[in-house]
Amino acid sequence: MVVKLVIEYDGTDYCGWQVQPNGVTVQEKIQTALKKLTGQDITVTGSGRTDSGVHAEGQVASFRIENSAVPAEKFSYALNTLLPADIRVISSSCETDDFNARFSAKKKTYRYRMYVSDICKPLKERYAYRIDEVDAEKMKQAAALLVGKKDFKCFCAADTAVKDTVRTIYSLEVKRQGQDVTVTVCGNGFLYNMVRIIAGTLLSVGEGKFSVSDVETALNEKNRTKAGRTLPAKGLTLVSVEYK
Amino acid sequence: MVVKLVIEYDGTDYCGWQVQPNGVTVQEKIQTALKKLTGQDITVTGSGRTDSGVHAEGQVASFRIENSAVPAEKFSYALNTLLPADIRVISSSCETDDFNARFSAKKKTYRYRMYVSDICKPLKERYAYRIDEVDAEKMKQAAALLVGKKDFKCFCAADTAVKDTVRTIYSLEVKRQGQDVTVTVCGNGFLYNMVRIIAGTLLSVGEGKFSVSDVETALNEKNRTKAGRTLPAKGLTLVSVEYK
Repeated sequence: MVVKLVIEYDGTDYCGWQVQPNGVTVQEKIQTALKKLTGQDITVTGSGRTDSGVHAEGQVASFRIENSAVPAEKFSYALNTLLPADIRVISSSCETDDFNARFSAKKKTYRYRMYVSDICKPLKERYAYRIDEVDAEKMKQAAALLVGKKDFKCFCAADTAVKDTVRTIYSLEVKRQGQDVTVTVCGNGFLYNMVRIIAGTLLSVGEGKFSVSDVETALNEKNRTKAGRTLPAKGLTLVSVEYK
Repeated sequence: MVVKLVIEYDGTDYCGWQVQPNGVTVQEKIQTALKKLTGQDITVTGSGRTDSGVHAEGQVASFRIENSAVPAEKFSYALNTLLPADIRVISSSCETDDFNARFSAKKKTYRYRMYVSDICKPLKERYAYRIDEVDAEKMKQAAALLVGKKDFKCFCAADTAVKDTVRTIYSLEVKRQGQDVTVTVCGNGFLYNMVRIIAGTLLSVGEGKFSVSDVETALNEKNRTKAGRTLPAKGLTLVSVEYK
Protein backbone atom coordinates (compact mmCIF):
# COMPACT_ATOMS: atom_id res chain seq x y z
CA MET A 1 0.00 0.00 0.00
CA VAL A 2 0.96 3.65 -0.34
CA VAL A 3 0.91 5.70 2.86
CA LYS A 4 0.66 9.49 2.95
CA LEU A 5 2.08 11.37 5.94
CA VAL A 6 1.36 15.00 6.82
CA ILE A 7 4.31 16.27 8.86
CA GLU A 8 4.95 19.33 11.01
CA TYR A 9 8.50 20.24 12.01
CA ASP A 10 10.57 22.96 13.56
CA GLY A 11 13.40 23.15 11.04
CA THR A 12 15.81 25.10 13.28
CA ASP A 13 18.03 22.15 14.11
CA TYR A 14 17.82 20.32 10.76
CA CYS A 15 19.80 20.53 7.53
CA GLY A 16 16.50 20.61 5.66
CA TRP A 17 14.25 17.83 4.48
CA GLN A 18 16.38 15.69 2.21
CA VAL A 19 18.85 13.04 3.41
CA GLN A 20 22.42 14.22 2.97
CA PRO A 21 25.81 12.92 4.08
CA ASN A 22 26.88 15.81 6.33
CA GLY A 23 23.94 16.71 8.51
CA VAL A 24 20.80 15.53 10.24
CA THR A 25 17.66 15.91 8.11
CA VAL A 26 13.94 15.43 8.65
CA GLN A 27 13.65 12.73 5.97
CA GLU A 28 16.43 10.77 7.71
CA LYS A 29 14.66 10.98 11.09
CA ILE A 30 11.44 9.70 9.56
CA GLN A 31 13.16 6.88 7.70
CA THR A 32 15.02 5.85 10.88
CA ALA A 33 11.71 5.78 12.78
CA LEU A 34 10.09 3.74 9.99
CA LYS A 35 12.96 1.25 10.12
CA LYS A 36 12.51 0.84 13.90
CA LEU A 37 8.77 0.45 13.49
CA THR A 38 8.63 -1.93 10.53
CA GLY A 39 12.11 -3.46 10.34
CA GLN A 40 12.18 -2.44 6.67
CA ASP A 41 14.40 0.04 4.83
CA ILE A 42 11.84 2.48 3.46
CA THR A 43 12.51 5.58 1.40
CA VAL A 44 9.95 8.34 1.91
CA THR A 45 9.32 10.85 -0.85
CA GLY A 46 8.66 14.43 0.26
CA SER A 47 6.45 16.84 -1.69
CA GLY A 48 9.67 18.77 -2.16
CA ARG A 49 12.83 19.61 -0.31
CA THR A 50 12.78 22.26 2.32
CA ASP A 51 16.11 24.02 2.91
CA SER A 52 18.15 23.97 6.07
CA GLY A 53 16.29 25.86 8.79
CA VAL A 54 12.93 26.05 6.96
CA HIS A 55 9.88 24.95 8.98
CA ALA A 56 6.78 23.00 7.95
CA GLU A 57 3.21 22.88 9.24
CA GLY A 58 2.07 20.58 6.47
CA GLN A 59 4.91 18.89 4.62
CA VAL A 60 3.61 15.77 2.87
CA ALA A 61 5.56 12.57 2.30
CA SER A 62 4.63 9.18 0.90
CA PHE A 63 6.07 5.70 0.91
CA ARG A 64 5.19 2.23 -0.31
CA ILE A 65 5.05 -0.72 2.06
CA GLU A 66 3.93 -4.30 1.48
CA ASN A 67 2.36 -6.52 4.16
CA SER A 68 2.42 -3.78 6.78
CA ALA A 69 1.51 -4.91 10.29
CA VAL A 70 0.62 -1.27 11.00
CA PRO A 71 -2.58 0.07 9.37
CA ALA A 72 -1.98 3.26 7.34
CA GLU A 73 -3.87 5.54 9.71
CA LYS A 74 -1.91 4.24 12.72
CA PHE A 75 1.48 5.26 11.31
CA SER A 76 1.15 8.80 12.68
CA TYR A 77 0.69 7.60 16.24
CA ALA A 78 3.36 4.90 16.00
CA LEU A 79 5.97 7.16 14.36
CA ASN A 80 5.41 9.95 16.88
CA THR A 81 6.54 7.65 19.70
CA LEU A 82 9.87 7.23 17.84
CA LEU A 83 10.47 10.75 16.48
CA PRO A 84 12.19 13.69 18.22
CA ALA A 85 9.80 16.32 19.67
CA ASP A 86 10.54 18.82 16.87
CA ILE A 87 9.06 16.47 14.23
CA ARG A 88 5.48 15.17 14.41
CA VAL A 89 3.33 13.26 11.95
CA ILE A 90 0.00 15.09 12.10
CA SER A 91 -1.90 12.42 10.15
CA SER A 92 -1.37 9.33 8.03
CA SER A 93 -3.66 7.74 5.47
CA CYS A 94 -3.84 5.07 2.78
CA GLU A 95 -3.69 6.44 -0.76
CA THR A 96 -4.20 4.94 -4.20
CA ASP A 97 -1.24 3.05 -5.68
CA ASP A 98 -0.31 5.88 -8.04
CA PHE A 99 -0.03 8.49 -5.26
CA ASN A 100 3.37 10.15 -4.97
CA ALA A 101 3.86 13.07 -2.57
CA ARG A 102 6.12 14.82 -5.06
CA PHE A 103 4.59 14.14 -8.47
CA SER A 104 0.93 14.19 -7.42
CA ALA A 105 1.21 17.61 -5.74
CA LYS A 106 -1.05 20.24 -7.33
CA LYS A 107 -0.60 23.30 -5.08
CA LYS A 108 1.75 24.36 -2.33
CA THR A 109 1.35 27.18 0.15
CA TYR A 110 4.27 28.85 1.89
CA ARG A 111 4.29 31.64 4.48
CA TYR A 112 7.16 34.06 5.11
CA ARG A 113 7.06 35.88 8.45
CA MET A 114 8.73 39.21 9.23
CA TYR A 115 8.31 41.66 12.10
CA VAL A 116 9.08 45.37 12.32
CA SER A 117 11.41 46.20 15.20
CA ASP A 118 14.64 48.06 15.93
CA ILE A 119 15.80 45.14 18.05
CA CYS A 120 15.88 41.40 17.36
CA LYS A 121 13.12 40.03 19.60
CA PRO A 122 13.95 36.76 21.36
CA LEU A 123 10.33 35.56 21.23
CA LYS A 124 10.01 36.24 17.47
CA GLU A 125 13.44 35.33 16.12
CA ARG A 126 12.96 31.59 15.89
CA TYR A 127 10.19 31.81 13.30
CA ALA A 128 10.46 35.27 11.77
CA TYR A 129 12.85 37.81 10.28
CA ARG A 130 13.38 41.24 11.81
CA ILE A 131 12.87 44.18 9.43
CA ASP A 132 12.82 47.97 9.61
CA GLU A 133 9.63 49.94 9.02
CA VAL A 134 7.95 49.13 5.68
CA ASP A 135 5.11 50.39 3.49
CA ALA A 136 2.88 47.29 3.36
CA GLU A 137 0.55 48.91 0.78
CA LYS A 138 3.43 49.19 -1.69
CA MET A 139 4.33 45.57 -1.00
CA LYS A 140 0.74 44.56 -1.83
CA GLN A 141 0.91 46.45 -5.13
CA ALA A 142 4.13 44.66 -6.09
CA ALA A 143 2.72 41.30 -4.98
CA ALA A 144 -0.23 41.69 -7.35
CA LEU A 145 2.20 41.80 -10.29
CA LEU A 146 3.47 38.31 -9.51
CA VAL A 147 0.13 36.49 -9.57
CA GLY A 148 -0.47 34.31 -12.63
CA LYS A 149 1.44 32.00 -14.96
CA LYS A 150 4.83 33.63 -15.48
CA ASP A 151 8.51 32.99 -16.03
CA PHE A 152 9.98 33.39 -12.54
CA LYS A 153 13.62 33.05 -13.62
CA CYS A 154 14.58 36.25 -11.79
CA PHE A 155 13.22 34.78 -8.54
CA CYS A 156 15.29 31.61 -8.76
CA ALA A 157 18.73 31.01 -7.18
CA ALA A 158 21.25 31.84 -9.95
CA ASP A 159 23.06 28.48 -9.73
CA THR A 160 20.03 26.27 -10.34
CA ALA A 161 20.04 23.69 -13.13
CA VAL A 162 16.30 23.88 -13.78
CA LYS A 163 15.43 24.67 -17.42
CA ASP A 164 11.74 25.47 -17.21
CA THR A 165 11.29 28.45 -14.90
CA VAL A 166 7.61 29.05 -15.70
CA ARG A 167 5.33 28.58 -12.69
CA THR A 168 1.82 29.66 -11.71
CA ILE A 169 1.17 31.67 -8.59
CA TYR A 170 -2.50 31.42 -7.60
CA SER A 171 -2.35 33.94 -4.78
CA LEU A 172 0.26 36.12 -3.09
CA GLU A 173 -0.96 37.95 -0.01
CA VAL A 174 0.85 40.54 2.10
CA LYS A 175 -0.72 41.04 5.52
CA ARG A 176 0.24 43.52 8.19
CA GLN A 177 -1.02 43.03 11.74
CA GLY A 178 0.60 45.34 14.26
CA GLN A 179 4.34 44.82 13.83
CA ASP A 180 3.97 41.49 12.00
CA VAL A 181 4.22 41.36 8.21
CA THR A 182 3.35 38.05 6.57
CA VAL A 183 3.72 37.03 2.94
CA THR A 184 1.62 33.99 2.01
CA VAL A 185 2.00 32.47 -1.44
CA CYS A 186 0.16 29.62 -3.13
CA GLY A 187 1.40 28.19 -6.42
CA ASN A 188 1.64 25.05 -8.51
CA GLY A 189 5.32 24.73 -7.67
CA PHE A 190 8.29 26.83 -6.68
CA LEU A 191 11.84 27.21 -7.99
CA TYR A 192 14.87 26.94 -5.71
CA ASN A 193 14.74 29.80 -3.15
CA MET A 194 11.80 31.34 -5.04
CA VAL A 195 9.65 32.16 -2.00
CA ARG A 196 12.58 33.63 -0.06
CA ILE A 197 13.56 35.78 -3.08
CA ILE A 198 9.96 36.92 -3.64
CA ALA A 199 9.74 37.86 0.06
CA GLY A 200 13.08 39.69 -0.23
CA THR A 201 11.92 41.54 -3.33
CA LEU A 202 8.64 42.59 -1.72
CA LEU A 203 10.62 43.68 1.33
CA SER A 204 12.86 45.88 -0.87
CA VAL A 205 9.69 47.50 -2.21
CA GLY A 206 8.37 48.00 1.33
CA GLU A 207 11.68 49.57 2.35
CA GLY A 208 11.56 51.95 -0.62
CA LYS A 209 14.72 50.50 -2.17
CA PHE A 210 12.75 49.16 -5.17
CA SER A 211 9.77 50.75 -6.87
CA VAL A 212 6.80 48.63 -7.88
CA SER A 213 7.90 48.96 -11.52
CA ASP A 214 11.39 47.65 -10.63
CA VAL A 215 9.66 44.36 -9.82
CA GLU A 216 8.03 44.34 -13.26
CA THR A 217 11.44 45.00 -14.82
CA ALA A 218 13.07 42.11 -12.92
CA LEU A 219 10.27 39.81 -14.05
CA ASN A 220 10.52 40.91 -17.70
CA GLU A 221 14.32 40.87 -17.88
CA LYS A 222 14.44 37.42 -16.19
CA ASN A 223 17.54 38.57 -14.38
CA ARG A 224 18.22 37.34 -10.83
CA THR A 225 20.37 40.39 -10.04
CA LYS A 226 17.38 42.69 -10.62
CA ALA A 227 15.30 40.99 -7.91
CA GLY A 228 15.72 41.36 -4.13
CA ARG A 229 17.85 39.43 -1.69
CA THR A 230 17.15 35.89 -0.48
CA LEU A 231 15.71 36.21 3.02
CA PRO A 232 16.87 33.84 5.81
CA ALA A 233 15.37 30.36 6.08
CA LYS A 234 13.98 30.72 9.61
CA GLY A 235 11.10 33.00 8.46
CA LEU A 236 9.81 30.42 5.98
CA THR A 237 7.18 27.75 6.66
CA LEU A 238 5.71 25.23 4.22
CA VAL A 239 2.06 25.57 5.25
CA SER A 240 0.32 22.93 3.13
CA VAL A 241 0.40 20.81 0.00
CA GLU A 242 -2.78 20.10 -1.95
CA TYR A 243 -3.38 17.08 -4.16
CA LYS A 244 -6.90 17.23 -5.57
CA MET B 1 21.48 57.48 38.61
CA VAL B 2 18.82 54.78 38.50
CA VAL B 3 18.41 52.96 35.19
CA LYS B 4 15.28 51.06 34.17
CA LEU B 5 15.58 48.21 31.65
CA VAL B 6 12.69 46.59 29.77
CA ILE B 7 13.76 43.08 28.85
CA GLU B 8 12.45 40.39 26.51
CA TYR B 9 13.68 36.82 26.83
CA ASP B 10 13.01 33.31 25.67
CA GLY B 11 13.10 31.49 29.00
CA THR B 12 13.47 27.98 27.53
CA ASP B 13 17.15 27.63 28.32
CA TYR B 14 17.21 29.55 31.63
CA CYS B 15 16.62 28.56 35.24
CA GLY B 16 14.37 31.58 35.57
CA TRP B 17 15.14 35.20 36.36
CA GLN B 18 16.91 35.16 39.68
CA VAL B 19 20.59 34.34 40.19
CA GLN B 20 21.04 30.93 41.74
CA PRO B 21 24.01 28.64 42.38
CA ASN B 22 23.03 25.71 40.16
CA GLY B 23 21.90 27.09 36.85
CA VAL B 24 22.16 29.89 34.32
CA THR B 25 19.64 32.68 34.91
CA VAL B 26 18.59 35.83 33.06
CA GLN B 27 19.59 38.14 35.93
CA GLU B 28 23.08 36.61 35.91
CA LYS B 29 23.46 37.16 32.16
CA ILE B 30 22.47 40.80 32.52
CA GLN B 31 24.77 41.37 35.48
CA THR B 32 27.66 39.74 33.61
CA ALA B 33 27.02 42.01 30.62
CA LEU B 34 26.86 45.07 32.93
CA LYS B 35 30.17 44.07 34.50
CA LYS B 36 31.80 43.82 31.05
CA LEU B 37 30.31 47.13 30.00
CA THR B 38 31.00 49.22 33.11
CA GLY B 39 33.68 47.31 35.01
CA GLN B 40 31.43 47.50 38.07
CA ASP B 41 29.67 44.76 40.05
CA ILE B 42 26.05 45.80 39.70
CA THR B 43 23.04 44.01 41.12
CA VAL B 44 19.89 44.44 39.04
CA THR B 45 16.48 44.18 40.69
CA GLY B 46 13.76 42.51 38.64
CA SER B 47 10.06 43.40 38.94
CA GLY B 48 9.73 39.85 40.21
CA ARG B 49 11.19 36.41 39.64
CA THR B 50 10.06 34.42 36.69
CA ASP B 51 10.36 30.64 37.11
CA SER B 52 12.55 28.33 35.11
CA GLY B 53 11.27 28.18 31.52
CA VAL B 54 8.94 31.19 31.78
CA HIS B 55 9.28 33.81 29.02
CA ALA B 56 9.07 37.60 29.14
CA GLU B 57 8.12 40.23 26.58
CA GLY B 58 8.38 43.04 29.11
CA GLN B 59 10.24 42.10 32.28
CA VAL B 60 11.49 45.25 34.01
CA ALA B 61 14.70 45.55 36.00
CA SER B 62 16.46 48.49 37.63
CA PHE B 63 19.90 49.25 38.97
CA ARG B 64 21.80 52.14 40.49
CA ILE B 65 25.08 53.34 38.97
CA GLU B 66 27.24 56.35 39.84
CA ASN B 67 29.38 58.24 37.31
CA SER B 68 28.27 56.08 34.38
CA ALA B 69 30.17 56.65 31.13
CA VAL B 70 27.13 55.20 29.35
CA PRO B 71 24.00 57.41 29.24
CA ALA B 72 20.89 55.65 30.58
CA GLU B 73 19.15 55.40 27.20
CA LYS B 74 22.26 53.83 25.59
CA PHE B 75 22.37 50.86 27.97
CA SER B 76 19.91 48.88 25.83
CA TYR B 77 22.09 49.10 22.74
CA ALA B 78 25.34 48.50 24.64
CA LEU B 79 24.03 45.52 26.63
CA ASN B 80 22.53 43.88 23.54
CA THR B 81 26.00 43.60 21.99
CA LEU B 82 27.05 41.57 25.06
CA LEU B 83 23.95 39.47 25.74
CA PRO B 84 23.05 36.08 24.21
CA ALA B 85 20.45 36.23 21.41
CA ASP B 86 17.65 34.89 23.62
CA ILE B 87 17.83 37.96 25.91
CA ARG B 88 17.37 41.50 24.60
CA VAL B 89 16.99 44.83 26.37
CA ILE B 90 14.10 46.49 24.51
CA SER B 91 14.66 49.90 26.07
CA SER B 92 16.53 51.65 28.86
CA SER B 93 15.79 54.94 30.59
CA CYS B 94 16.80 57.16 33.50
CA GLU B 95 14.34 57.09 36.40
CA THR B 96 13.97 59.09 39.61
CA ASP B 97 16.19 58.06 42.50
CA ASP B 98 13.40 56.27 44.35
CA PHE B 99 12.53 54.00 41.41
CA ASN B 100 12.80 50.29 42.14
CA ALA B 101 11.61 47.75 39.56
CA ARG B 102 10.20 45.53 42.27
CA PHE B 103 8.72 47.90 44.85
CA SER B 104 7.50 50.59 42.46
CA ALA B 105 5.54 48.10 40.29
CA LYS B 106 1.79 48.82 40.22
CA LYS B 107 0.40 46.29 37.74
CA LYS B 108 1.68 43.19 35.98
CA THR B 109 0.22 41.41 32.98
CA TYR B 110 0.85 37.75 32.23
CA ARG B 111 -0.35 35.63 29.32
CA TYR B 112 -0.78 31.86 29.35
CA ARG B 113 -0.98 30.19 25.93
CA MET B 114 -2.61 26.83 25.18
CA TYR B 115 -3.62 25.18 21.91
CA VAL B 116 -6.17 22.48 21.18
CA SER B 117 -4.67 19.50 19.37
CA ASP B 118 -4.47 15.70 19.59
CA ILE B 119 -0.76 15.91 18.82
CA CYS B 120 2.02 18.05 20.30
CA LYS B 121 2.79 20.53 17.50
CA PRO B 122 6.50 21.26 17.00
CA LEU B 123 5.82 24.87 15.94
CA LYS B 124 3.64 25.59 19.00
CA GLU B 125 5.33 23.63 21.78
CA ARG B 126 8.06 26.13 22.62
CA TYR B 127 5.63 28.82 23.77
CA ALA B 128 2.34 27.04 24.46
CA TYR B 129 0.76 24.05 26.18
CA ARG B 130 -1.19 21.40 24.27
CA ILE B 131 -4.70 20.73 25.54
CA ASP B 132 -7.71 18.65 24.52
CA GLU B 133 -10.94 20.28 23.34
CA VAL B 134 -12.35 22.81 25.83
CA ASP B 135 -15.48 24.90 26.35
CA ALA B 136 -14.02 28.41 26.29
CA GLU B 137 -17.36 29.98 27.28
CA LYS B 138 -17.32 28.06 30.57
CA MET B 139 -13.73 29.18 31.12
CA LYS B 140 -14.83 32.81 30.65
CA GLN B 141 -17.60 32.37 33.24
CA ALA B 142 -15.12 30.98 35.76
CA ALA B 143 -12.58 33.72 34.96
CA ALA B 144 -15.15 36.40 35.80
CA LEU B 145 -15.35 35.04 39.38
CA LEU B 146 -11.67 35.77 39.97
CA VAL B 147 -11.67 39.46 39.08
CA GLY B 148 -11.39 41.84 42.05
CA LYS B 149 -9.61 42.06 45.40
CA LYS B 150 -9.66 38.56 46.86
CA ASP B 151 -7.74 36.08 48.96
CA PHE B 152 -6.04 33.90 46.33
CA LYS B 153 -4.58 31.41 48.84
CA CYS B 154 -6.02 28.46 46.88
CA PHE B 155 -4.12 29.62 43.77
CA CYS B 156 -0.76 29.74 45.50
CA ALA B 157 1.86 26.95 45.60
CA ALA B 158 1.21 25.09 48.88
CA ASP B 159 4.79 25.42 50.15
CA THR B 160 4.99 29.21 49.97
CA ALA B 161 5.96 31.25 53.05
CA VAL B 162 3.91 34.32 52.07
CA LYS B 163 1.44 35.38 54.78
CA ASP B 164 -0.73 37.88 52.96
CA THR B 165 -2.41 36.09 50.05
CA VAL B 166 -4.83 38.88 49.15
CA ARG B 167 -4.27 40.30 45.69
CA THR B 168 -6.29 42.33 43.19
CA ILE B 169 -6.95 41.04 39.68
CA TYR B 170 -7.98 43.92 37.41
CA SER B 171 -8.81 41.78 34.39
CA LEU B 172 -8.75 38.11 33.44
CA GLU B 173 -9.53 37.40 29.81
CA VAL B 174 -9.98 34.05 28.08
CA LYS B 175 -9.72 34.27 24.31
CA ARG B 176 -10.22 31.53 21.75
CA GLN B 177 -8.96 32.02 18.18
CA GLY B 178 -9.10 28.89 16.08
CA GLN B 179 -7.23 26.25 18.08
CA ASP B 180 -5.44 28.79 20.30
CA VAL B 181 -6.73 29.50 23.80
CA THR B 182 -5.09 32.39 25.64
CA VAL B 183 -5.56 33.47 29.24
CA THR B 184 -4.40 37.04 29.93
CA VAL B 185 -4.40 38.34 33.48
CA CYS B 186 -3.57 41.76 34.88
CA GLY B 187 -3.17 42.28 38.62
CA ASN B 188 -1.38 44.28 41.29
CA GLY B 189 0.83 41.30 42.08
CA PHE B 190 0.83 37.53 41.92
CA LEU B 191 1.57 34.76 44.42
CA TYR B 192 4.02 31.99 43.64
CA ASN B 193 2.69 29.93 40.68
CA MET B 194 -0.59 31.88 40.84
CA VAL B 195 -0.98 32.48 37.09
CA ARG B 196 -0.12 28.88 36.22
CA ILE B 197 -2.62 27.59 38.83
CA ILE B 198 -5.34 29.99 37.64
CA ALA B 199 -4.72 28.83 34.04
CA GLY B 200 -4.84 25.18 35.22
CA THR B 201 -8.08 25.79 37.11
CA LEU B 202 -9.73 27.51 34.13
CA LEU B 203 -8.52 24.63 31.96
CA SER B 204 -10.19 22.12 34.32
CA VAL B 205 -13.42 24.07 33.89
CA GLY B 206 -12.99 24.06 30.10
CA GLU B 207 -12.40 20.31 30.16
CA GLY B 208 -15.56 19.76 32.22
CA LYS B 209 -13.63 18.37 35.21
CA PHE B 210 -14.60 21.36 37.38
CA SER B 211 -17.86 23.26 37.36
CA VAL B 212 -17.85 27.05 37.54
CA SER B 213 -19.09 26.79 41.14
CA ASP B 214 -16.14 24.51 42.03
CA VAL B 215 -13.93 27.52 41.37
CA GLU B 216 -16.00 29.60 43.77
CA THR B 217 -15.66 26.85 46.38
CA ALA B 218 -11.84 26.71 45.98
CA LEU B 219 -11.68 30.48 46.38
CA ASN B 220 -13.91 30.50 49.49
CA GLU B 221 -12.27 27.50 51.16
CA LYS B 222 -8.77 28.92 50.48
CA ASN B 223 -7.60 25.38 49.85
CA ARG B 224 -4.91 24.71 47.22
CA THR B 225 -6.10 21.13 46.71
CA LYS B 226 -9.52 22.40 45.54
CA ALA B 227 -7.97 24.40 42.65
CA GLY B 228 -6.60 23.02 39.37
CA ARG B 229 -3.12 21.81 38.48
CA THR B 230 -0.09 24.06 37.92
CA LEU B 231 0.41 24.25 34.14
CA PRO B 232 3.94 24.00 32.65
CA ALA B 233 6.18 27.08 32.59
CA LYS B 234 6.67 27.19 28.80
CA GLY B 235 3.12 28.51 28.17
CA LEU B 236 3.65 31.52 30.44
CA THR B 237 4.91 34.96 29.39
CA LEU B 238 5.33 38.07 31.53
CA VAL B 239 3.87 40.59 29.10
CA SER B 240 4.38 43.92 30.86
CA VAL B 241 4.88 45.73 34.16
CA GLU B 242 3.29 49.12 34.79
CA TYR B 243 4.58 51.73 37.19
CA LYS B 244 2.38 54.81 37.03
